[in-house]
Amino acid sequence: MPAYKAPLRDIRFVMNELLESEALYQSLPGYEEATADLMDAIIEEGAKFAENVLSPLNESGDEEGCTWSEQGVTTPAGFPEAYQQYVENGWPALSAGTEFGGQGMPNLLGIVVNELAGTANWSWLMYPGLSLGAVKTIDAHGDDAQKQKYLTRLVEGGWTGTMCLTEAQCGSDLGLLRTKAEPQADGTYAITGTKIFISAGEHDMAENIVHIVLARLPDAPAGTKGISLFIVPKFKVEDDGSLGERNALQCASIEKKMGIKGSATCVMNFDGATGYLIGPPNRGLNCMFTFMNIARIGTAIQGLAHAELTLQGSLAYARDRLAMRSLSGPKNPDGAADPIIVHPDVRRMLLTQKAFAEGNRAFIYFLSQQADIVDAGTEEQAKAADDLLALLTPIAKAFATETGYEAANLGVQIYGGHGFIKEWGMEQIVRDARIATLYEGTTGIQALDLIGRKVLGSGGKLLTGFTELVGSFCDAHSDEASAEFTSALNCYKDDWLDLSMKIGEKAMANPDEAGAAAVDYLMYSGYVVLAYFWARMAILANSKIAAADGDTSFYEAKLMTARFYYGRILPRTLAHKQALLSGSDNLMDMPEALFDVQG
Amino acid sequence: MPAYKAPLRDIRFVMNELLESEALYQSLPGYEEATADLMDAIIEEGAKFAENVLSPLNESGDEEGCTWSEQGVTTPAGFPEAYQQYVENGWPALSAGTEFGGQGMPNLLGIVVNELAGTANWSWLMYPGLSLGAVKTIDAHGDDAQKQKYLTRLVEGGWTGTMCLTEAQCGSDLGLLRTKAEPQADGTYAITGTKIFISAGEHDMAENIVHIVLARLPDAPAGTKGISLFIVPKFKVEDDGSLGERNALQCASIEKKMGIKGSATCVMNFDGATGYLIGPPNRGLNCMFTFMNIARIGTAIQGLAHAELTLQGSLAYARDRLAMRSLSGPKNPDGAADPIIVHPDVRRMLLTQKAFAEGNRAFIYFLSQQADIVDAGTEEQAKAADDLLALLTPIAKAFATETGYEAANLGVQIYGGHGFIKEWGMEQIVRDARIATLYEGTTGIQALDLIGRKVLGSGGKLLTGFTELVGSFCDAHSDEASAEFTSALNCYKDDWLDLSMKIGEKAMANPDEAGAAAVDYLMYSGYVVLAYFWARMAILANSKIAAADGDTSFYEAKLMTARFYYGRILPRTLAHKQALLSGSDNLMDMPEALFDVQG
Repeated sequence: MPAYKAPLRDIRFVMNELLESEALYQSLPGYEEATADLMDAIIEEGAKFAENVLSPLNESGDEEGCTWSEQGVTTPAGFPEAYQQYVENGWPALSAGTEFGGQGMPNLLGIVVNELAGTANWSWLMYPGLSLGAVKTIDAHGDDAQKQKYLTRLVEGGWTGTMCLTEAQCGSDLGLLRTKAEPQADGTYAITGTKIFISAGEHDMAENIVHIVLARLPDAPAGTKGISLFIVPKFKVEDDGSLGERNALQCASIEKKMGIKGSATCVMNFDGATGYLIGPPNRGLNCMFTFMNIARIGTAIQGLAHAELTLQGSLAYARDRLAMRSLSGPKNPDGAADPIIVHPDVRRMLLTQKAFAEGNRAFIYFLSQQADIVDAGTEEQAKAADDLLALLTPIAKAFATETGYEAANLGVQIYGGHGFIKEWGMEQIVRDARIATLYEGTTGIQALDLIGRKVLGSGGKLLTGFTELVGSFCDAHSDEASAEFTSALNCYKDDWLDLSMKIGEKAMANPDEAGAAAVDYLMYSGYVVLAYFWARMAILANSKIAAADGDTSFYEAKLMTARFYYGRILPRTLAHKQALLSGSDNLMDMPEALFDVQG
Repeated sequence: MPAYKAPLRDIRFVMNELLESEALYQSLPGYEEATADLMDAIIEEGAKFAENVLSPLNESGDEEGCTWSEQGVTTPAGFPEAYQQYVENGWPALSAGTEFGGQGMPNLLGIVVNELAGTANWSWLMYPGLSLGAVKTIDAHGDDAQKQKYLTRLVEGGWTGTMCLTEAQCGSDLGLLRTKAEPQADGTYAITGTKIFISAGEHDMAENIVHIVLARLPDAPAGTKGISLFIVPKFKVEDDGSLGERNALQCASIEKKMGIKGSATCVMNFDGATGYLIGPPNRGLNCMFTFMNIARIGTAIQGLAHAELTLQGSLAYARDRLAMRSLSGPKNPDGAADPIIVHPDVRRMLLTQKAFAEGNRAFIYFLSQQADIVDAGTEEQAKAADDLLALLTPIAKAFATETGYEAANLGVQIYGGHGFIKEWGMEQIVRDARIATLYEGTTGIQALDLIGRKVLGSGGKLLTGFTELVGSFCDAHSDEASAEFTSALNCYKDDWLDLSMKIGEKAMANPDEAGAAAVDYLMYSGYVVLAYFWARMAILANSKIAAADGDTSFYEAKLMTARFYYGRILPRTLAHKQALLSGSDNLMDMPEALFDVQG
């Protein structure tokens, strides 16, 4: 496993130079303390923690995995101590509101620190990472007593939280869920049912675990409109905040998985456990939508994290490993052969990893800033930011994780046969990355959200909100050097609008047309969005190079990676476009029985 | 893990209807016994063995893996017994020459049986599968005494064989290998060195293991022109064929791998082991080229196998799992939701798996027939077949394994979060499939072989040999129904030639242009080759439907899958074309140090 080295130069470039974070946060009420210096200092501390504490536990955590017993779940050696240190250093409170002990730093900063921790050790990050949903839910929908009772300890990290949605018979389709909530005389509810895939459902890191459980009241309507939310703590909490008796819930088992083995994925049995209604009855799903964007951005980071980690591992190997001579003559004449980084195809793979890691970093940080603007901007600013978030979040979640998985697989490929062997660590990245396109809404679900709810559902308004941004940028950068990127980008932007219109027209006549186009449309959109960020980065790099401001090598690398992206990655849009224009018949005509005729 | 069901209907369609195997083999001297009836009967027996004996050991073999001790390697429970049964039923001898006890059946039939066995359990197939290289090497280059001594037992399966090529410092670049062969007074050689990644290098299935080892003679020239081949048996063989003393070689350890865990991947130490030169000194690599095509086709099957297995698993789940309603109205109104096979995107994934499984089956069987024509055809026939094999084999190896891996990942995706969980078996297919684009020459190596040695190296002659076949087919099928496929195919064929010419011109000025184009060119070629086979299958299906010959549902499914392939998969060529035309600068301009500027 490559030892993780935080890419601080690129993180600062995106935060400070590209997205001008200091200026933004100085303008947002409540975030004035988030100066560039402070944020830099926090990120440096986060980098040290990630490199020195979490990265060394990544391989051993995979090897060891989690262990279940009737007494609970034991996480891999070192995980609880690392979590203790994380809590002592105040990390859980970083971007939480100050009312309950949080430090009130921007979402962006929380996302950057999660990138650092998650790249070093994604399995470990799942424990504190999953608390976010519980915190956001209680903060947004809890009453004062509930906030008082749970938020302080969750924010400070002494307790962790989970989100208990999935059941064996339902994942994407939560309308099918069966867990019951029976009202009790004392105003609480008896929660009964089995939840699966509960990350951090049980572990040995914190004193208490606060489950947010989706369940049905006795008189609830069928489907998604009959789901309510409940707080169900592992240990009941007394009014003075101390822990009371054990609640009637158990981790029945943990899953054997392909990857992220250090993260406990629990089957949770609730046997009449005491729960507390949070938010209005039957409105549970709506309540959850309030923080869905930030949760999805949290998963999008995984794509970025794995692209970065696999790039670091691949690059070290490509410089070290000798095989064959460069086609254009020896580059290492004194050695037995040339390092494989001289070979064009190895460079193609490395640059693909680099283009995705750095491009998705810019994309995801930008989105996180939008979440901060939603929280703290003026009404008008917040509305615009919310619209951007609504459109771009499903793209970021699906596109960053799909391309992150591709990058991870290229890491194995660069190592050749050694990539398949555990000791090099590259295959673990593939196994860990594989989950990211599945949980928090599969790529297919994100694609339906994008084309159905966001693009067509808004009558195209959300899309034009973003394409106008792209158009203005292209107009403002039409000089010859910038046009290397903006002229193509401008065409893609028009084409994206045109394609969206065409799908919309077809979907009016036949709703399956939207579903048939969805994933190709999402990937098309993702490549165009990344082209926008690569154009912004390239043009900024050009201006820095022109100013000859110190060492320009970083900016030269940006420019060349942008050229690579436009030349070799962006053309994938052509395939997605033609595929989605081919219509739904080639998917829907086949009668189900004909998929495997054996006769 | 889905229980494997051999797709006999499709196998017979390709063998008998599409490729008219009986007529071919009746015309090839030595293969007259290979009637359709006999081949069918053999395939049915192979299917039973694969379904009933090998498939049940696939999941347990992954779970258990292999165990190393100083005494040797223990394979998973049931593996040795299955091998015993395989030998008793005569399977190892199926396509071996009759001179040493083989049954003399066509290569095609051996490939089909390997598909059956390998789809059921690829790890298990690695043990008998690896013998092929040893048999072919000894058969082609051994002297009579060597053939007599080793071939009979290898063919009958009492012994197995290996190919010992790779060393820690060299895989693709065998010129760097260091294992030494010192001549001894008795005419044998003392072999000293360490080989890695030796599949089936040690196991508990057979009495003896015959290693073919690549090593250097003391006076050998450096690089690939100084490599010789040696037979190095685990137990020395007396002149009467009985086993003598243990040779000085050991399995030092086995690798921990991402997948195919039931297959022992051995580090082999040769400590002055007794070896016997085979073939002329220093010509070892040339000798190995004689069977490289058939070995690569053997690996290409893995792509087909995993596409088929993942399709079977996905289809069962897609029919069973209920989630959400069809966008065009409920299809299962009495159920709580519709089965997910109603959703367009699930169908897109299933049809992708199906198009690759069935398309690559036709492609690989066709190639296997060409290998038989090389062996038994007239000189003119053999020359044409050999040219086709030379061109198409690197495409088949890389394209079938890349698309097989894609199909396996779609299998996980169709299962959603469950795909990540071991008990469903889908993640194992991904892990097992991952090796296929790495061993027996990575995708990058196949691509260099294709563009460099085959296409440009033949001055385009090998390519035009195949495109003329495609052109004649299109000309012969220009009627309206056929033109649905052949008009596009004809354009692609012209475009392929044109692209090849362009790369050739650029490579004359700058050899890195060939390397920069290589993988995109290979994938482009693969999609066009598969389009040819899908056109052939579709047009044949059309004629069967027109003849209304019995149940036409199989042919209707073929036709619809061909439409899917042309509509949704073939457009990927557009992306590969534009990427490769973008030239080498966007790969080569970046100075090595700039890949990760941290300053």
